[in-house]
Amino acid sequence: MYGELSPPQRLLLGAGPSNLDPRVLRALTAPMVGHLDPYFLDVLDETSDLLRYAFKTKNRLTMAISGTGSAGMEGAICNVVERGDEVVVCVSGFFGERMLEIVDRCGGKCVEVRADWGEIITKEAVEEALSNSSAKVVWIVHGGTSTGVLQPLRDIARVVREYDSLLLVDAVTSLGGCELDVDGFGIDLCYSASQKCLNCPPGLAPITVSERAMERVRNRETKVQSWYLDLSEIERYWLESNRVYHHTAPLLLIYALREALRLLREEGLEERWKRHERNSLALIRGLEAMGLEVYPKAYRCPALTAVSIPDGVDDQSVRRRLREEYGITISGGLGALKGKVWRIGLMGINSTERNVIVFLEALERVLKREGYPLKLGEGVSAAIEAFARN
Amino acid sequence: MYGELSPPQRLLLGAGPSNLDPRVLRALTAPMVGHLDPYFLDVLDETSDLLRYAFKTKNRLTMAISGTGSAGMEGAICNVVERGDEVVVCVSGFFGERMLEIVDRCGGKCVEVRADWGEIITKEAVEEALSNSSAKVVWIVHGGTSTGVLQPLRDIARVVREYDSLLLVDAVTSLGGCELDVDGFGIDLCYSASQKCLNCPPGLAPITVSERAMERVRNRETKVQSWYLDLSEIERYWLESNRVYHHTAPLLLIYALREALRLLREEGLEERWKRHERNSLALIRGLEAMGLEVYPKAYRCPALTAVSIPDGVDDQSVRRRLREEYGITISGGLGALKGKVWRIGLMGINSTERNVIVFLEALERVLKREGYPLKLGEGVSAAIEAFARN
Repeated sequence: MYGELSPPQRLLLGAGPSNLDPRVLRALTAPMVGHLDPYFLDVLDETSDLLRYAFKTKNRLTMAISGTGSAGMEGAICNVVERGDEVVVCVSGFFGERMLEIVDRCGGKCVEVRADWGEIITKEAVEEALSNSSAKVVWIVHGGTSTGVLQPLRDIARVVREYDSLLLVDAVTSLGGCELDVDGFGIDLCYSASQKCLNCPPGLAPITVSERAMERVRNRETKVQSWYLDLSEIERYWLESNRVYHHTAPLLLIYALREALRLLREEGLEERWKRHERNSLALIRGLEAMGLEVYPKAYRCPALTAVSIPDGVDDQSVRRRLREEYGITISGGLGALKGKVWRIGLMGINSTERNVIVFLEALERVLKREGYPLKLGEGVSAAIEAFARN
Repeated sequence: MYGELSPPQRLLLGAGPSNLDPRVLRALTAPMVGHLDPYFLDVLDETSDLLRYAFKTKNRLTMAISGTGSAGMEGAICNVVERGDEVVVCVSGFFGERMLEIVDRCGGKCVEVRADWGEIITKEAVEEALSNSSAKVVWIVHGGTSTGVLQPLRDIARVVREYDSLLLVDAVTSLGGCELDVDGFGIDLCYSASQKCLNCPPGLAPITVSERAMERVRNRETKVQSWYLDLSEIERYWLESNRVYHHTAPLLLIYALREALRLLREEGLEERWKRHERNSLALIRGLEAMGLEVYPKAYRCPALTAVSIPDGVDDQSVRRRLREEYGITISGGLGALKGKVWRIGLMGINSTERNVIVFLEALERVLKREGYPLKLGEGVSAAIEAFARN
């Protein structure tokens, strides 16, 4: 009745999860020890260290929340916001809309800064929101998981600092795939997810918090509403020498994360960013040569390309064929972009020249079969040329 | 600087995590697909079905929360409690104390029902609390993770039902190891954890909720304060045919859980309970023959035995020797029982005749070396006799 587990092999080129690195997979199968075993406590320390490298930060509070990226999102807000606090929420995609909901549930009051989906948020808009409100927290997405936009952060961070506010950044899609410099940009709190450019299984949300932000957390008048996501409680287990049990850490996921971060460090952050950029540029050239239009006009995230679905082409049918006939998963659109874009992720080990070619070839075939007018090989050729040039 | 991951082999006989079943380990390494892949959606359905078997319930809302058992604990409360609501919290161990804190952070008001640690909560005490308050929710622990007590639930469930209240049960340590019958007992909401008697890695909290309880959730006046743990949102992804993305499910952990539940079903719940009982009885005979005292006088949980640390014996030193010299992990006491008890788990595949013997032999050796007066072999012999009788 419940057969042997035997999932199909998929090349995961959607918005995440991405495929696991074979070394990450191997780490997952290492012998499990107790969550207070001295061996594991060293693993925690090393994982924090390696995360500091990945985030480019010296923040002491750097660890992983025991939940998915969405738990990171909620944890970020509920630690720094108290009931009645105003919060600037920058909305230019699906996850901005979701954050409005999360802030509301935390008892915060949203000051919305909006841009059209696919556009970036300007520093002027953030400044206006800060000057017209009492908000001391600004939340913004770095790599737009729903739109494929890469949001510039330096100027906004400067403005936020001028208003003595905290900058909270969602780096779910960007960490390990796009230039991110937590200390250099001036970010106060940054979280991500394990299953995107780090090629780990989903279930962990890396997070780093500046001393400035932690002071705010420590000086709250009320307790953080979530006991599970309370950073001051979790840090006593992750980061203090006299480890205080909080909850049983997801040991194997942390083994996996540590290995993924070792891989990142071996390659080097800058090298990794360059690789993602090179491959996404070739992908874009290929898509454009097929007559497709990349959704964001500028500020494109190298880890995730959103491309508009051409008129008359059936979204679901194309994705089903890619999956069933080619073993390739891509993502459809979220929210307002449902049926309007495909999201193609080249994340971590999946960002390779080979995957760009393999994907474009498959997409050409499928689109042709679906009646879309194109000449087979044009997309692939354009990508090959782009690779030759870069 | 950050070397190859190579954790030591440990026999995990503490309060959890337990060792993984080799088939669970294999499931973890199955190819990962997308969280909306048709293959994975079938895995979700099957996992829900298998969880219904494990919980002994027909509840439609039966799934796993994407966090550890502590997330299950918080999720249970924050879905059924609104600000200002009174909640009966039964406190007879560490996790009861913790629940007071969680209820408080959810804005609930605790009506405490206390028993000494190591004792059970009586139905009379629960009835008194219900009759003297407006509480419509009662929370209680089934298998006491800090005390080794197995709390009887049938009579309490009847009382709770008479007061038209909901019974919330923490089955973190008991699910899959001790008799638990969600529908038969009359439990409205029950949650557990993956890393105890199910032998999965930590990171998931199975949960089942009755239609009666879900009606309460759906008729709330205010939103559930946690977006991440909102059952009505999660069920749209786990259980509705038109799957609505909520967060990226921890795919590999769910593969593992499904496999663990298949194993449970192959063995049969009743067989599993009997096995746990037989092995814990032999363990207890062995400990007693060594002059040690089991902490709860009665109502002992077959998955977890708490034993008092004899006077003059160094808690930490014994546990360190067991770990370093014998590769065996047991747990120390939590909270008020720190330094006073050891907690010995025989959970899932770890509940075997062999592990009882191996552990007792090691403990005898270590205690002897630490100066505790005993005759080597007495504990082991008593266990062997107990096995021969049962």
